[in-house]
Amino acid sequence: MKLSLILELTGIKNLDIDEDIDIKNINTIKDASKDEISFLDNQKYLQDLKDTKAKAVFITEDLKQFVPDGTYALQCKNPYLAMAKTTKLFAKNHTRDRGADAILEKGAKVWTDIKNIGYDTKIGQNSIISRGVVIGNDVSIGKNCIIYPNVVIYDGCKIGDECIIHANTVIGSDGFGFAVDGKEYTKIYHNGIVNIKNNVEIGSNTSIDRAVFDETYIGENVRIDNLVHIAHNCYISEGCIITGQCGFAGSSKLGEYVIVGAQSGVAGHLQIAPFSTISARSGVTKTITKSHKQWTGFPIMEHKVWLKIQAKIQKMFNKNLKK
Amino acid sequence: MKLSLILELTGIKNLDIDEDIDIKNINTIKDASKDEISFLDNQKYLQDLKDTKAKAVFITEDLKQFVPDGTYALQCKNPYLAMAKTTKLFAKNHTRDRGADAILEKGAKVWTDIKNIGYDTKIGQNSIISRGVVIGNDVSIGKNCIIYPNVVIYDGCKIGDECIIHANTVIGSDGFGFAVDGKEYTKIYHNGIVNIKNNVEIGSNTSIDRAVFDETYIGENVRIDNLVHIAHNCYISEGCIITGQCGFAGSSKLGEYVIVGAQSGVAGHLQIAPFSTISARSGVTKTITKSHKQWTGFPIMEHKVWLKIQAKIQKMFNKNLKK
Amino acid sequence: MKLSLILELTGIKNLDIDEDIDIKNINTIKDASKDEISFLDNQKYLQDLKDTKAKAVFITEDLKQFVPDGTYALQCKNPYLAMAKTTKLFAKNHTRDRGADAILEKGAKVWTDIKNIGYDTKIGQNSIISRGVVIGNDVSIGKNCIIYPNVVIYDGCKIGDECIIHANTVIGSDGFGFAVDGKEYTKIYHNGIVNIKNNVEIGSNTSIDRAVFDETYIGENVRIDNLVHIAHNCYISEGCIITGQCGFAGSSKLGEYVIVGAQSGVAGHLQIAPFSTISARSGVTKTITKSHKQWTGFPIMEHKVWLKIQAKIQKMFNKNLKK
Repeated sequence: MKLSLILELTGIKNLDIDEDIDIKNINTIKDASKDEISFLDNQKYLQDLKDTKAKAVFITEDLKQFVPDGTYALQCKNPYLAMAKTTKLFAKNHTRDRGADAILEKGAKVWTDIKNIGYDTKIGQNSIISRGVVIGNDVSIGKNCIIYPNVVIYDGCKIGDECIIHANTVIGSDGFGFAVDGKEYTKIYHNGIVNIKNNVEIGSNTSIDRAVFDETYIGENVRIDNLVHIAHNCYISEGCIITGQCGFAGSSKLGEYVIVGAQSGVAGHLQIAPFSTISARSGVTKTITKSHKQWTGFPIMEHKVWLKIQAKIQKMFNKNLKK
Repeated sequence: MKLSLILELTGIKNLDIDEDIDIKNINTIKDASKDEISFLDNQKYLQDLKDTKAKAVFITEDLKQFVPDGTYALQCKNPYLAMAKTTKLFAKNHTRDRGADAILEKGAKVWTDIKNIGYDTKIGQNSIISRGVVIGNDVSIGKNCIIYPNVVIYDGCKIGDECIIHANTVIGSDGFGFAVDGKEYTKIYHNGIVNIKNNVEIGSNTSIDRAVFDETYIGENVRIDNLVHIAHNCYISEGCIITGQCGFAGSSKLGEYVIVGAQSGVAGHLQIAPFSTISARSGVTKTITKSHKQWTGFPIMEHKVWLKIQAKIQKMFNKNLKK
Repeated sequence: MKLSLILELTGIKNLDIDEDIDIKNINTIKDASKDEISFLDNQKYLQDLKDTKAKAVFITEDLKQFVPDGTYALQCKNPYLAMAKTTKLFAKNHTRDRGADAILEKGAKVWTDIKNIGYDTKIGQNSIISRGVVIGNDVSIGKNCIIYPNVVIYDGCKIGDECIIHANTVIGSDGFGFAVDGKEYTKIYHNGIVNIKNNVEIGSNTSIDRAVFDETYIGENVRIDNLVHIAHNCYISEGCIITGQCGFAGSSKLGEYVIVGAQSGVAGHLQIAPFSTISARSGVTKTITKSHKQWTGFPIMEHKVWLKIQAKIQKMFNKNLKK
């Protein structure tokens, strides 16, 4: 994508730069490589800006001074909005209607209408694709998987070996993201994927959203129950157990072997230390750095503290509550 | 529908009225027009009764005196039950199996089996109907929409222009409604629709129920995330942002540009003032009349009050909780 | 299944028993009959062990002494793991691809692709199977049912007469169960079914999991709303009303005519007394034995107690919270 097109779409003018440069993709300021474009809308990431390899960044006037040499500063009022607009230029065509026929490896059984499987997609050995399943283009499914009826897997997603996905679950729907500009919402096109590793089982009616850039990651051996919501760019490490109706906001990151009790929620951009246990119906609102502990409540606290507080409340009110 | 049939079904007898009257529909006491029938089961709506234009109302003996001239009083023990029974008479036949073939406007792409699209339905210009989508009769979908795989849209619903609906979402399932009479539940047939305006994006695995009468309304520019539950007759105004796993009970009404945090719930028949923000995991149990404020907790309170209470609780218990 | 095969799979050796015995099934220690195998992993069920009729039980060394005469003690370190491994031997082949064509009784309307209906399945009189519905093998659906589009019903499940199931709901997905052995998870194959009795209505995008052994039970006249999660082996008695986004962990049991408010959760292996009301957004963490009462909060308490506590908290903080 020519930089000139990006500048035209975002209304950025009068820069003394080579607009003929080819931009390969859009990425975070931290991960962007030298042929990618990025943005900064939060001072928190100032150090990432100083270290960025991005070819160009959307940036406000006041932070322009921190853009390193070799990176173009694309000055604008609302860098997040500029980024959102630019995602559209890099959006995959989710409706591509031609390509190579799906490859079905030896022993793969496709019971859904073969037209429900996209182009340039691969179904691994002995995997079963049940009736009503719809699989997009450029999808890769490993061997010995069972995909139950009416599951939908969007374009580009990857499923490992030995995975089971129960009925009506959705893998790869767009994340919930848009730039707000007064009363206008500009859709952020989610050009990343969902990457599910080996030996994962996922319940029914669960939604796992694709990443903005890069991938939403579900590690090896993870177990996910029914009606779970996993937002864009979450990172669920190996061996995590996620029970029914939990929700994870964007970019939350679980260390390995975390257990999350039913109907809990985790706010965005948090980390949970490995081997943590989150009790049912908890709301995780801050990063958990100590591993091997149990956490409860909303706002969350150590489980043993929560138990003490409950006991105290009980005691405090007990006299008056007796009938 | 002849009034005589309604009276027969509901077991109301010995009225000195013209049973040959044609009743066009059933509606709330406030909205009923002069060829419609209604009911009163709550003294709260007594003023609406006095002002009603309904041709007839199911009503208990004690309130009969307030029925205005020109409206028939259909006296019965359980007006809500009588209404429930009557809804069946006005139920659309959700299984109508004939009618005009769907109209596909210029550029519309229908990738689902064409037989999955009902009679008298219209798909607007350049809209994409993905594989496995099922659309009922009398549905109208605007232009430039993307309906992702395995979405179900029930009979009669309307989708505006530029809408995106993600996989496995359901638009127009019956509301959760029935009249209780001892151990008997009488289904209330939901004869209304869901009306979704322009430029709305809805996530995956979300359910939006149809109205009892009239419509469940999703205003222009609304954004709805995954696994959201919107019950019958909700009114979501322009620009609202509804995040993952929220739930809205019947007839709740959001003013414009309300933001609802993840996993929150809103009780039935409440209003939320425009530009309110509801924090994640809140339970809204009362109408919010002041706009431009943030609300938190369950029961809900102003966010700044909630913060103070949390700080106080922390302080109060802190001594004893130290290990 | 020969006992020798089970012993080989679970690595149990050197027993002086007749390995040629035929084991018909795997079951709980309480319900196992004399041609079934069982396990004990919790001292709580010691009395059940003493009374068991099981032909053999997986058991730890210390409890071996309590195994009654006529039952083989299969000593191992992790009986739950041994049981999990054994479930695989008794797993139905969810992918059986031959059998008798489905029986469609008089007046049944099948609008989904007939190939979407499994072998040895029966659709009752006048029932409607909508487009995109997928039904497994050995399923039985009663008369006058409406199964809305894209519903999935797994193998072996039973639906009574006069039932309505709304779009994209899943009946019979595997329960969330596995044996944990260090970092290894061993899937527990769910060989039970879901048994739904007459006159049940279920909303859209709801998940009801199949039982490990035996059945997940939904009694007559039950009403279930949208996006509800009912885990394996739950028992929902006649007339229960379950509103939107509730969740029930494994083996929870509701007495008749229990009402559960929206977004509530019930922990596993609990009972709720008949005619209880659970307020919205409650978390039931203990068995409720008194019937005809209302319960609120998390942890749950009687509704009137909860109201008092809320009032006290309000009062306590009121002075300082005034602005």
